[in-house]
Amino acid sequence: MLEFYTKDTADILLAKLRDRAENVSADVLNTVAAIISDVRKDGDAALRMYTERFDGVSPESFFLSDKEKKEYTDRVPEELKRSLRLAASNIRAFSGRQIRGSVSYEDGGKRMGERLIPLKRVGIYVPGGTAAYPSSVLMNAIPARTAGVEEIIMVTPPKSGGINPAVVYAAELAGVDRILTVGGAQAVAALAYGTESIPKVDKIVGPGNIFVAMAKKLVFGTVDIDMIAGPSEILIIADSGADPEFVAADLLSQAEHDRLAAAILLSDSEDLARAADAMLERQIGILPRADIASESIRRFGSAVIMPSLEECAELSDLIAPEHLELAVRDPESLLVKVRNAGSVFLGDYTPEPLGDYFAGPNHVLPTNGTARFASPLSVDAFMKRSQYLSYSKDELLDAGEHIIRLAESEGLGAHARSVRIRMEKNGR
Amino acid sequence: MLEFYTKDTADILLAKLRDRAENVSADVLNTVAAIISDVRKDGDAALRMYTERFDGVSPESFFLSDKEKKEYTDRVPEELKRSLRLAASNIRAFSGRQIRGSVSYEDGGKRMGERLIPLKRVGIYVPGGTAAYPSSVLMNAIPARTAGVEEIIMVTPPKSGGINPAVVYAAELAGVDRILTVGGAQAVAALAYGTESIPKVDKIVGPGNIFVAMAKKLVFGTVDIDMIAGPSEILIIADSGADPEFVAADLLSQAEHDRLAAAILLSDSEDLARAADAMLERQIGILPRADIASESIRRFGSAVIMPSLEECAELSDLIAPEHLELAVRDPESLLVKVRNAGSVFLGDYTPEPLGDYFAGPNHVLPTNGTARFASPLSVDAFMKRSQYLSYSKDELLDAGEHIIRLAESEGLGAHARSVRIRMEKNGR
Repeated sequence: MLEFYTKDTADILLAKLRDRAENVSADVLNTVAAIISDVRKDGDAALRMYTERFDGVSPESFFLSDKEKKEYTDRVPEELKRSLRLAASNIRAFSGRQIRGSVSYEDGGKRMGERLIPLKRVGIYVPGGTAAYPSSVLMNAIPARTAGVEEIIMVTPPKSGGINPAVVYAAELAGVDRILTVGGAQAVAALAYGTESIPKVDKIVGPGNIFVAMAKKLVFGTVDIDMIAGPSEILIIADSGADPEFVAADLLSQAEHDRLAAAILLSDSEDLARAADAMLERQIGILPRADIASESIRRFGSAVIMPSLEECAELSDLIAPEHLELAVRDPESLLVKVRNAGSVFLGDYTPEPLGDYFAGPNHVLPTNGTARFASPLSVDAFMKRSQYLSYSKDELLDAGEHIIRLAESEGLGAHARSVRIRMEKNGR
Repeated sequence: MLEFYTKDTADILLAKLRDRAENVSADVLNTVAAIISDVRKDGDAALRMYTERFDGVSPESFFLSDKEKKEYTDRVPEELKRSLRLAASNIRAFSGRQIRGSVSYEDGGKRMGERLIPLKRVGIYVPGGTAAYPSSVLMNAIPARTAGVEEIIMVTPPKSGGINPAVVYAAELAGVDRILTVGGAQAVAALAYGTESIPKVDKIVGPGNIFVAMAKKLVFGTVDIDMIAGPSEILIIADSGADPEFVAADLLSQAEHDRLAAAILLSDSEDLARAADAMLERQIGILPRADIASESIRRFGSAVIMPSLEECAELSDLIAPEHLELAVRDPESLLVKVRNAGSVFLGDYTPEPLGDYFAGPNHVLPTNGTARFASPLSVDAFMKRSQYLSYSKDELLDAGEHIIRLAESEGLGAHARSVRIRMEKNGR
């Protein structure tokens, strides 16, 4: 089922992966731009109109009341609540380690530094339907809360049958302040510009369909956004000692996500790769989402036989996968050779779903090769830095000639003058 | 010359500032998209063609040789070299304080963390002509070098008279590895996709005209970019004890930057504001860039008289200025009330040009109100995080039921199966 490559033909795979991202049509752009413009102009009225048109409901209030929240959370089975609580506690512990201090230092009459300040208000988009994942609520909201964001507003499309109760429970666990049942580009526009009932936020995070992704792109600059998620991938580096059954199961766990997902195996052992391929064929049929997984495997499922594990790591760096499993006997010594990967899973008993759901590191990761330059979602994403600088009179007068010289060399006379006027006033 | 407002009319100023950003025409978008597509397809040949067309030169090589670099740097006056060296050393010291450690922790058979990894290769755009600022080279390249970036490539448009020697000297000081005389959207495209002679980079930073800014937007995702700089601003909060001559000079230092720059004074003292306004009128005429400063002051120069300094800070937070000067008797106690500002300058002897050129904090700052959510350029911008996770067999088997439950609640059967297969193999 996997397409097999060697070191010499790996370029073909690289090119195939690069072309995975879908092009967004001009229609989507125009539709979304019109929605944003309407919400900006007409506020709640436009929001209501689009919610009726796209979601087929006209809620009395966009906000869930405490009573409604309780009705939802009462419907979540106790066992699932317990699993969500454990996951939340692990994510909170990991986020807590990411907090860092402000920078500050003094040197004579000079003092400078940068203050770390949480964003004031953040919006989290949670898709409706089958993609209403409580785990995503935890992964997006907990780092925001840990950063010290004052208000977290969650938006999710309304449905006639109500929203996913587990999503509401996860929101309560993560410390989301308000839940709004509004979705699509109109929800993004409301968060970016504010309406009569919805306050504008500083940043919008969370996954969504192409309309939501386009709306986030268009409001970027007015507010901050997280990265636009592209097609996702898992890459497994396995040696001859790996368990082919585990390898196959882990490749499939990514493949079931969506039809553009890529599942890639790199190995220095052709035997292992062939065995994993055979296992994959046996496992795929019995999956509940076999149709999606099959299409993803058919299009992008790949195995590359490389001369050594080191060369596997080098090829992996070129692919820069979102998830990287090291199914090798000595994962620690291979980890230090890896530069580009969103999240790395070490050893036979650290499968990707452990990180997706439970262990603590974030599951919002750079996709589609962007791990070359981008990072997992973290507390950092919900804080910003503000610099400060203070010079005493003497320090400024001592530095004055240099500032004036530099400003004049760039032809910026008023910059020079702002310093010179202070020198002159002090007889320099 | 300043337009005066009060607390009650400040909304008018806020609206005026929000509408400052220029709309980019569809022509620019189409032109830039075509250039990028040509460079992507034809590499160096396209680069040569556009360099001839737009810059009127056809260089033998795009790269400056060591001999050429030396010829340029020999032409920089010793005094200016000394000032640049001092500035570089201050910027290096500040950048050095920004380095932070990786996160890592263990708990029984669980181990997880995130590694901080420098980007491998970075491109820095330096505009040609009058905006060829050596200070910008230092501010962009030094944090990259401090972060540990392996290769820094600077691009700047060629000119028949050669490029600014001080820019070449600053590049040498900052540790730029290669200087390319190529500019415009074609330079951005070459850095993003690579050509026969130019390797592709992971991130492109630095200011440029609307073609460069649009090209950066279009290649974002293929590479990372810094923020697109919008119109800039200075906001000064001054009390009755401030020196009106200093206040006026500092407002003008920002106004001379460009016609869309905003210079805003907030004060609890109308007397001080009127005195600063009078000074400004006297100072503006003698400036070398009086035409630019006058237009900027006429369009956006403003003074708002507020009931108290606290309310000045609140209004400043709504504006979220790029530069904020606190020309008050007790700047420290006002600083802690400020949430949204790129860089804050404390007291009468810390004028903005000190930070623009010399003291160490970065001068690449969030403009146009984006300080609400964005940060100054720093070492962080040139590093990324990569998470890792390791569970022992026992730890995974203990956590297994929760992972399976969470995955199944989200309908992701292959995720559940990846864990269940490991449980079954161990008789759980």
